[in-house]
Amino acid sequence: MRSPQNWAVSMGILRRKRYDCVAMSTRTESSVLVVGVVFRGGYWLDGVMHTEILVDGFDATENISKMVTSSPHYEQLRVIMLNGITFAGFNVVDIKALNAMTGLPVIAVTREKPDLPRIRNALKHLPRSEERWKAVLNAGEISEVSTRKEGEKIYLHVAGVSLVDAEKIVRLTSTRSNIPEALRVAHLIASGISHL
Amino acid sequence: MRSPQNWAVSMGILRRKRYDCVAMSTRTESSVLVVGVVFRGGYWLDGVMHTEILVDGFDATENISKMVTSSPHYEQLRVIMLNGITFAGFNVVDIKALNAMTGLPVIAVTREKPDLPRIRNALKHLPRSEERWKAVLNAGEISEVSTRKEGEKIYLHVAGVSLVDAEKIVRLTSTRSNIPEALRVAHLIASGISHL
Repeated sequence: MRSPQNWAVSMGILRRKRYDCVAMSTRTESSVLVVGVVFRGGYWLDGVMHTEILVDGFDATENISKMVTSSPHYEQLRVIMLNGITFAGFNVVDIKALNAMTGLPVIAVTREKPDLPRIRNALKHLPRSEERWKAVLNAGEISEVSTRKEGEKIYLHVAGVSLVDAEKIVRLTSTRSNIPEALRVAHLIASGISHL
Repeated sequence: MRSPQNWAVSMGILRRKRYDCVAMSTRTESSVLVVGVVFRGGYWLDGVMHTEILVDGFDATENISKMVTSSPHYEQLRVIMLNGITFAGFNVVDIKALNAMTGLPVIAVTREKPDLPRIRNALKHLPRSEERWKAVLNAGEISEVSTRKEGEKIYLHVAGVSLVDAEKIVRLTSTRSNIPEALRVAHLIASGISHL
């Protein structure tokens, strides 16, 4: 029997899929595949799942939530980790909503500190910009932490977990680089399967 | 600098892609995506790549060879591991040819002992059956080995490497199950991205 130690699912943007065939009208909008990987601690890959979200759309939170809760691994998951809070352009994940929808703590990790004034400015060129901005602000304060080396910082947004616990989790699971191994692997898979 | 320890690339069947749009006539034949993963020993995923092959086609050997030799990881690879020698129905990999084309040893691993009379019989229903059968025979003798537990056997076809060395390699890299970790992970990725 599998022990209840599976505990991370992380996302990586996969590809921009454009359909050449007009007949497939329901899928002519650009979509991006999101890859989730299920990791046991910082070492073992236990599963891979995927969903699709629209470029600059508003479906990231709901689709990622559905992907997680419909997975056979769901009952054993302990935390969701995300590569940042924006996917597929500016399809923003509302991490508080994702936490509420899945019942799982959410930790969004970035290597660069997000430049909020620049994001706000970029959003102005998109429809429903205030709604997107609200989702960005809803992620709350960003925190700087280091995982393996004191000098190498990463940045966290958290929901449903204390910053102290989130720091412990990212440190324990950053087994190969300065980001959690699940996020590194999700990104490798996403890059390797892109351009299909 | 990356040390020259990357050394396995393995394949897993990904999906059967059927195109609904007749306009895309060059791609109406069923194809299957093959996933290759680059592993450092039995622990760390270092890269993911993919190629496509035709269902019951004859392009597996060439396309897998091209995928491997065109990869940025190629210079550091030490061995190719395959999930068996048939992909996408009966698209047979000629492991001797793959060894010659890539300059890398090839180890094909299966959990079940292939039933040769049954394969031969199944091949009769396909075009160019003798050619396929020849590629199967060209894989040579199959050898039974155990990796983690004495009672759990796996089966190897090898090309360009002695059976003694191949046994050492599969034992060293079967870190999580009774097959090499690269093959376990390639299969997980293939299953998780299928049905696109």
